[in-house]
Amino acid sequence: MSDETTSQVSRRRLLGVGAGAAVAGAVAGVGGAYAVSHDRADARSGGDPTGTDTESTNDMVAFRGERQAGIVTPAQDRMHFVALDVVTQDRAALAAMLKAWTRAAERMTAGAEAAPGGVVGGGPYRAPEDTGEAYDLDASDLTITIGYGPSLFDDRFGLADRKPAALEDLPGFVGDDLDPARSGGDLCIQACANDPQVAVHAVRNLVRMGFGVVAVRWSQLGFGRTSSTTRNQVTPRNMFGFKDGTNNLKAEDADALDEHVWVQPADVPGASAWMSGGSYLVARRIRMHIEIWDRTPLQEQQDIIGRDKGEGAPLGQQAEFDPLDFGKLGADGKPAIPVDAHVALAHESRLNGIRILRRGYNFTDGSDGVGHLDAGLFFIGFMRDAHQQFVPMQRSLAAKDGLNEYIEHTGSAIFACPPGLGPDEHWGQTLFS
Amino acid sequence: MSDETTSQVSRRRLLGVGAGAAVAGAVAGVGGAYAVSHDRADARSGGDPTGTDTESTNDMVAFRGERQAGIVTPAQDRMHFVALDVVTQDRAALAAMLKAWTRAAERMTAGAEAAPGGVVGGGPYRAPEDTGEAYDLDASDLTITIGYGPSLFDDRFGLADRKPAALEDLPGFVGDDLDPARSGGDLCIQACANDPQVAVHAVRNLVRMGFGVVAVRWSQLGFGRTSSTTRNQVTPRNMFGFKDGTNNLKAEDADALDEHVWVQPADVPGASAWMSGGSYLVARRIRMHIEIWDRTPLQEQQDIIGRDKGEGAPLGQQAEFDPLDFGKLGADGKPAIPVDAHVALAHESRLNGIRILRRGYNFTDGSDGVGHLDAGLFFIGFMRDAHQQFVPMQRSLAAKDGLNEYIEHTGSAIFACPPGLGPDEHWGQTLFS
Repeated sequence: MSDETTSQVSRRRLLGVGAGAAVAGAVAGVGGAYAVSHDRADARSGGDPTGTDTESTNDMVAFRGERQAGIVTPAQDRMHFVALDVVTQDRAALAAMLKAWTRAAERMTAGAEAAPGGVVGGGPYRAPEDTGEAYDLDASDLTITIGYGPSLFDDRFGLADRKPAALEDLPGFVGDDLDPARSGGDLCIQACANDPQVAVHAVRNLVRMGFGVVAVRWSQLGFGRTSSTTRNQVTPRNMFGFKDGTNNLKAEDADALDEHVWVQPADVPGASAWMSGGSYLVARRIRMHIEIWDRTPLQEQQDIIGRDKGEGAPLGQQAEFDPLDFGKLGADGKPAIPVDAHVALAHESRLNGIRILRRGYNFTDGSDGVGHLDAGLFFIGFMRDAHQQFVPMQRSLAAKDGLNEYIEHTGSAIFACPPGLGPDEHWGQTLFS
Repeated sequence: MSDETTSQVSRRRLLGVGAGAAVAGAVAGVGGAYAVSHDRADARSGGDPTGTDTESTNDMVAFRGERQAGIVTPAQDRMHFVALDVVTQDRAALAAMLKAWTRAAERMTAGAEAAPGGVVGGGPYRAPEDTGEAYDLDASDLTITIGYGPSLFDDRFGLADRKPAALEDLPGFVGDDLDPARSGGDLCIQACANDPQVAVHAVRNLVRMGFGVVAVRWSQLGFGRTSSTTRNQVTPRNMFGFKDGTNNLKAEDADALDEHVWVQPADVPGASAWMSGGSYLVARRIRMHIEIWDRTPLQEQQDIIGRDKGEGAPLGQQAEFDPLDFGKLGADGKPAIPVDAHVALAHESRLNGIRILRRGYNFTDGSDGVGHLDAGLFFIGFMRDAHQQFVPMQRSLAAKDGLNEYIEHTGSAIFACPPGLGPDEHWGQTLFS
């Protein structure tokens, strides 16, 4: 590969200040091989992903594989999520955009600019092919995950017979206060990275490329991950100050992932077989009334959650990863973990074995207009069938969870995330074929 | 110092996974000395600040000093900014809150919990003294900077005679489209850190402590810095994809800072002398119409800015830090830098020597409701007198800047940031004395 090719497509340059070792990785692109030169001076990217089906090189997560990246990939620190409406009736234009997105997403995931030519290579009289704000930044473990909403399968694009049976809008739940402007969508893009500017750049460039085909319906920035998805990640904390996701499914649990996360062939017979190997994404924007929570005594907080706040240990136990023991009694003779604690209501033992893969993010979106921060949890869960998993779990929580006094679901969506792409495949290929 | 004291006040714990070397730093607190144990395993904090008047130890920026931290401190990667209204008429309660804030801010800056007792040390029957979401995170170069708005000096708190002459609301500018809900405020807190969760945690805890005294008027999360404030920082890029702040004032320019940033004794005679050594903060929320910009040819973008997009060099020059040469002609016989380019209109040579210290952040706040990302630049500038510096600069830009086609000022505020604190001082002390 010539130096010219390398410099032509590389988003990254070696920085003049504090530059460390440079590594060059060759990536097979849709339109041919291209090289990416990486600036390794920026050590902020803390990822050291385990070998899952989205294997990584340094701060780069493989784009192609059996599964889409961004599901069991070790949860990156930051996220930009966007839901889009398709604004054309032109099926071919939609399919073409998805193909173009594939190429751009693969490039950006590898640390390259969104398209050949990039920021300055297209000449003075054309709009640049990349918007430039990530030009000096490295790949930062960027993953770009796509999903299709139920509304994509209405009568606009001839996809009605391709709709999987499980891709139905979620029902309403007790206490829902959903804003239609923060709910639904024909398509979604989940961009996760350790540098938020890299995630925002990815979404912004895909939206730009989709001009005339899609428009932004809603978007959400997440500043801190709230779940671990691999065993070697430290469990992060949510805006209630508690460790979150200790008991999450992990990338290492292959059998459990097949049972709870990945859509199996028998789930999607016939024309919906394109979804085999994919996963359903449920997004819930959960506003937290942190001001009320912050005035709640420690023990009450712990009883509501079912874990201690410092270590994250189940009540009655010592360490974070100790098993939940619902039979153990406290000094007062009552169960150490209250029967309606959040961890009890959401536990598989109370839900006929239901589990999901959580991958949410903390958010704060300015003020609520009446004196408080508009902060909370942008819940993202991946699962094999939302109506068999999220729905009964959320019904249980909506009915009894003590947290309901402190939270409000303000947005909701479901998307079908197709499986990963083979070497020559692109998004939409099996759906539109 | 006893181990007990250390563990009592330390927010950080050594993480069980991948822990590196632990360092302990002793910090002189308001109520006595306390120690903070730091987890250094997390290498995401990229700060290596130069020695300014806010000297740093590892990832910790000194809270006390001649100046407030967060002004010439090397710009951290992320920011959470909040403007507050005072909701009490009780002068003593306001002064007491500012004193309590001082102690909490110093603790959090050092990586400790907001108050003694912290997350779990206050016992089961009290609300925790710290909300907990930063419990496992290190100091991340956190700085907390306070400012007072013009409205604080009305007749509510007996401060009218303390108001500096320069602390007047900004005038309107051509093209302003200001939202009152994103403008003004009695007080502001600027929290900057390399981990956004640390910045959000700091603001949230100060707001919590101020319950009944202050309420959130507006807040803004910034995901990427747009300026360097020291010579050893790489120049970042804004959402137009251009390097921003190349010609910014830098921490090393002591004489220029005295001339352009720090309020001098003669500026604040008599009862406003408390502001001597401080700086005025101008905040402008600038929505960028990135979709239109992204369809603009490269040369037109470069002519509007006055720099090339790849390197950031002034047009007609080769390298980013080459001087701007307004006399140099291009191949067409016209000035290489168009006379109304942004860098020309904002240049000191066109503004009677006016300069400011820029310290803004990129933002993206969901959708605008009509199909676009609500993204842009949260401009923050520090200066000696906003009416002598920002106002003429913005008048020049508002009248002629080609960027106006692509931007919209949607929020505006001015705050007086007092000088730094000596060993036994607290916020509000000189103002309320």
